[in-house]
Amino acid sequence: MHSLAPLFAPRGILVVGASASPDKLGAVMAQSLASYPAPLALVNSRGENGMHTSIADAAATIPGGPDLAVLCVPAAATAQALRDSAAAGATAALVCAGGFAEAGGPGLEFARQVEDAVRDTGIRLLGPNTSGFFVPHRSLRASFVPGVAALEPGPVAVVAASGGVNHVLAFHLQRAGVGVSLAVGIGAGVDISAPDVLEYLISDPHTKAVALHLETVADGPALVDAVARLSAVKPVVALVVGRNDVSEFAQSHTGALATSWRTTRAVLKQAGAVIVDDEHQLVAAVTALAGRRLTPAADPGVGLITGQAGPGLLIADALHSAGVALPRLDRNSQEAIGALLPPLTFQANPVDTGRPGPGYEKIVAAVAADPAIDVVAVYGLTEPVADLPASVAASGAAGTLPIVIGVDGPDSDLERAAKSARQYGLPLISGPTALAHGITALVNDARGQFQRAQAPAGSFAWPELHGPWDEVRSKELLGALGIATPPRRRCESRTAAHEALADLGGPVAVKLLDATVLHKTDIGGVFLGVESPAALDRALDGLEAAGAREFLIESMAPSGVDLVVGARRDPVFGPIIVLGLGGTAAEVFADISIRSAPLSVRGAEGMPGELQARELLYGFRSGPVLQTTELAVILARLGDALCSNEEIAEIEINPLRLTRNGLLALDAVVINVEEDIQ
Amino acid sequence: MHSLAPLFAPRGILVVGASASPDKLGAVMAQSLASYPAPLALVNSRGENGMHTSIADAAATIPGGPDLAVLCVPAAATAQALRDSAAAGATAALVCAGGFAEAGGPGLEFARQVEDAVRDTGIRLLGPNTSGFFVPHRSLRASFVPGVAALEPGPVAVVAASGGVNHVLAFHLQRAGVGVSLAVGIGAGVDISAPDVLEYLISDPHTKAVALHLETVADGPALVDAVARLSAVKPVVALVVGRNDVSEFAQSHTGALATSWRTTRAVLKQAGAVIVDDEHQLVAAVTALAGRRLTPAADPGVGLITGQAGPGLLIADALHSAGVALPRLDRNSQEAIGALLPPLTFQANPVDTGRPGPGYEKIVAAVAADPAIDVVAVYGLTEPVADLPASVAASGAAGTLPIVIGVDGPDSDLERAAKSARQYGLPLISGPTALAHGITALVNDARGQFQRAQAPAGSFAWPELHGPWDEVRSKELLGALGIATPPRRRCESRTAAHEALADLGGPVAVKLLDATVLHKTDIGGVFLGVESPAALDRALDGLEAAGAREFLIESMAPSGVDLVVGARRDPVFGPIIVLGLGGTAAEVFADISIRSAPLSVRGAEGMPGELQARELLYGFRSGPVLQTTELAVILARLGDALCSNEEIAEIEINPLRLTRNGLLALDAVVINVEEDIQ
Repeated sequence: MHSLAPLFAPRGILVVGASASPDKLGAVMAQSLASYPAPLALVNSRGENGMHTSIADAAATIPGGPDLAVLCVPAAATAQALRDSAAAGATAALVCAGGFAEAGGPGLEFARQVEDAVRDTGIRLLGPNTSGFFVPHRSLRASFVPGVAALEPGPVAVVAASGGVNHVLAFHLQRAGVGVSLAVGIGAGVDISAPDVLEYLISDPHTKAVALHLETVADGPALVDAVARLSAVKPVVALVVGRNDVSEFAQSHTGALATSWRTTRAVLKQAGAVIVDDEHQLVAAVTALAGRRLTPAADPGVGLITGQAGPGLLIADALHSAGVALPRLDRNSQEAIGALLPPLTFQANPVDTGRPGPGYEKIVAAVAADPAIDVVAVYGLTEPVADLPASVAASGAAGTLPIVIGVDGPDSDLERAAKSARQYGLPLISGPTALAHGITALVNDARGQFQRAQAPAGSFAWPELHGPWDEVRSKELLGALGIATPPRRRCESRTAAHEALADLGGPVAVKLLDATVLHKTDIGGVFLGVESPAALDRALDGLEAAGAREFLIESMAPSGVDLVVGARRDPVFGPIIVLGLGGTAAEVFADISIRSAPLSVRGAEGMPGELQARELLYGFRSGPVLQTTELAVILARLGDALCSNEEIAEIEINPLRLTRNGLLALDAVVINVEEDIQ
Repeated sequence: MHSLAPLFAPRGILVVGASASPDKLGAVMAQSLASYPAPLALVNSRGENGMHTSIADAAATIPGGPDLAVLCVPAAATAQALRDSAAAGATAALVCAGGFAEAGGPGLEFARQVEDAVRDTGIRLLGPNTSGFFVPHRSLRASFVPGVAALEPGPVAVVAASGGVNHVLAFHLQRAGVGVSLAVGIGAGVDISAPDVLEYLISDPHTKAVALHLETVADGPALVDAVARLSAVKPVVALVVGRNDVSEFAQSHTGALATSWRTTRAVLKQAGAVIVDDEHQLVAAVTALAGRRLTPAADPGVGLITGQAGPGLLIADALHSAGVALPRLDRNSQEAIGALLPPLTFQANPVDTGRPGPGYEKIVAAVAADPAIDVVAVYGLTEPVADLPASVAASGAAGTLPIVIGVDGPDSDLERAAKSARQYGLPLISGPTALAHGITALVNDARGQFQRAQAPAGSFAWPELHGPWDEVRSKELLGALGIATPPRRRCESRTAAHEALADLGGPVAVKLLDATVLHKTDIGGVFLGVESPAALDRALDGLEAAGAREFLIESMAPSGVDLVVGARRDPVFGPIIVLGLGGTAAEVFADISIRSAPLSVRGAEGMPGELQARELLYGFRSGPVLQTTELAVILARLGDALCSNEEIAEIEINPLRLTRNGLLALDAVVINVEEDIQ
């Protein structure tokens, strides 16, 4: 039995701190749990309304003992109640109260006591500082919010950082006609955290899709692992809060500093999650994904059938913005559709049908049969005389690929359409843009699973190299990684520098060589385009003035487009790989792609395409054209290098220049872990 | 009486092409119109069910004659039916049929016939190719969609390019608890277009806020004028389709090429509209704006009160992303709030209340009274025991500033909260992100009206200058506009060039001077950093080889940050002003700000702040700091120049360099209208 089964399917429940005053939280919780079809025992220290005064007495009334203890007591009394509950047989507990670490002051001590109790007893604890969880198909509702009684069972699990957001998502899903299988607010996450619940959901038969809401991440690798394993069997959609600095408020809420929003989204995407921007997208995404999932593919094609051109334009525009392809239908498909529709309408994809009429199901079948189409979106205003889900089902196409239906109309029509859609097992979404979000989620889920299927690169045999990492040694490491650098000479004297110039031929770059200097340019440690011995002497004078004792003489690289690539250790997620464009503009736009390492070459091939300014890399204004695989090999190897040597904190190549002859690393910095003290 | 009154409040209606077959559009339309409390006369050419066979006969049954003719006849028969209806007294008509210009072929001729009939008779025509309009408070529903009978009257007008989107928006507003005052699908817009309806809404007493959906713009100045005049008296929210190239499908739909999405959004914003990205934002925006409007201000502050921290974080994050400020409350406010709340919660803004309890209305009052707060957002999960709108109303704060309430919960709770909010005249929105969108719309409306209040600059006295516009003459024009340029000499000989070098001192730029060459660099027409007579001779050799007969010798400018600024004539909106950053990266990011001219200096001051990379202009890495007004004066004057001389097609300064000594125009191109033939 899974260690969370006593929490989510308890054979008996203790409510500690139940109350006879109906407006007290303990009373509300007891009332909410009363519908659960298993023994419930209430504990009230003053014995109100004949309730038990001791946890042990209450537990004794439950045959086989209580699995779950729901504690409605103040923070100061929580640890002892936990110990007593465990002693009485409870193996899971829910603590909703606040006033622990997030409150500071005495709360820090209360939190420590709770942690000790969990460690000593082995009880699995959800909370503190959460508004609970609910499992509608078991009528189990451990929540202070009475409205959860109205929530219907369904295929979507909600795992939210915050109890409030857990409720918001459950209500919005209900409003969208989608029920929940399990909905959990993690709260402070002292014991049970999001990865634990995700792992539980892998084998939960009621859950077909998972909505994940994250504020902070305590254990990055555990989260990535859980998302990867869960998304392999059912789709996971993640909403990460904190695009902006809301950390002061967030810290008051969770007691933790916000994890990097950008990195969290990138590594979760890499782990197979679909990433969304707000709760509207989240609801649309899990609605679509709770139906049939797409076959993993690099770039699935969408067929759009719309009864009205105006909403169809909104859908097509939103799909384009999301990078989702609406491929032109082939000649056969267009001929088949042309025979079914009047000539006025657009039929190449989108297919503009006008009001659904006879033969509509054949149009759906024709679009679905087109070789470029992997998923079909069907949209229309509701019509009293037409049952869109029935027409779609009659096409037979839903047996071969996912179809999502979008409808708009009065509430009563929407309810009828939703009922029909449920009957035929078809996802249904209201609103053109929401339909586009749902389709985008299906496509991104398929892309994520396709990427996941690529094996990571092998481990890297670290060469006989170690710090201090001056530029020459750093570039020797790059050489061992198979990354090209310009011809160079390490020179310990001016004479050697002159020999190097003669040897390499001008123009050369002349640089200060010192592992302790990370930013050579800032201190006048770099001279470019040196051609003559006289110019070299001037450069060497400058370097010596800047304190140089060794020089690096290096052939100048041809012009090109500068990239910045690197691998470093994220404090939450461990080794990550970062790609961006060089220059201040790209820096200000924060236009970067991130992956966690180790990474397959195939996985890294997706990184340049994530850059907003990617067109600069592919022959912009007759410039050089990136060979994507060449860059992907470099990115993957940087990650392998970091994974292979725990002493290395960071490797950065800035710039990595895209030239007509390929990629060339012009400068490199390697930092050991112990040096990383800034 | 307004010329659209016969359309939207007719004293009698003719339905031409009514049908006895209930599934025909003519029958559906007649059925839909039957609820309107004014005489209705049906025309059917075969006299089915005793209907009139002639328009004249039918019209004669309507006392005072029909105002409105609703035509349900094929495209080929439409023009004659229009003429007959006008002859029978109709002064307005609705044509829903398609098959006109958008269909091509014979449709082009039918469209021409309709245009002729409109011109000859003066009848005001809505359509063709629209699904109609509805005015719920008059029970007037000219629509084929039976569900519109369920739409309730309310304060929001919908003006949609597409009949389908008109219906979608009306249904979504209804679902959001907001009714419509008038909802119109423009369709082909042969006669009545969006500006006509917007102008009608200025004096429509039932409309408090307007939702505008645009696909293409036929008459830019008319649209801008209508939006400016309407937004001065009631808020206008605009959704513009076409971020991406969906023109092939759009053209099949509307028969017109898509107008520039970016320019349309920019000039509508300048005219006072609030711009949104999708229909969710549109619905949230008009819901909030149908309540109290904010006082015009440059940067209003938002106070956020939330019952749950998790949803509060979603709201705060979304507001930050939208550039909306949540100012820290002052000491007085925090003390007042601190006395009302337990110490655990965050109280500086957002204010985290926990479940609303006694004294909640005092918290609302304290936040609203803070001097930095101009609008308050209140959020909470619904509670059966608490009436959030009533508590907010009890604060008395809604009499001094706008307050928007956000709630989530089961449908029954939402309905109760919505009813209470309507009773207290408070806008209510479901969903944290939707609440943030509503608040953002209120803030952006106030910003737009604040900008509108700035008077445009005066007209520009064009100097004694005319083309051909070589670089020297272009820079003389810039001088007349008060824009700084480097010292320069026009040189007709090599001797003169050498004198210029001696005179200006090196380093200089040496350029080919020829009004017929727009891209000097591409043909080797520019040499930079020339210091010595020998280097000058090499440069002059190069220029002569490139065909130069005149030379420009110009002092080299100091380094800095390059901008691109210009004024040109947009084919739809007329003179516009464009600001962007120089360099390929900024170009690829399409990071530009657009305004229509004439423009006030104050209005232009908002442009650099719209650039994503604006931080590059304000001392990035110890770089130069832009004096915003200096740039705004240049931008406004470029617009004035274009408005003052109709012969000028375009003025572009590329680059305009931000240096430590201010802005300096390094190169300028002026193009006359007749030259603009590329």
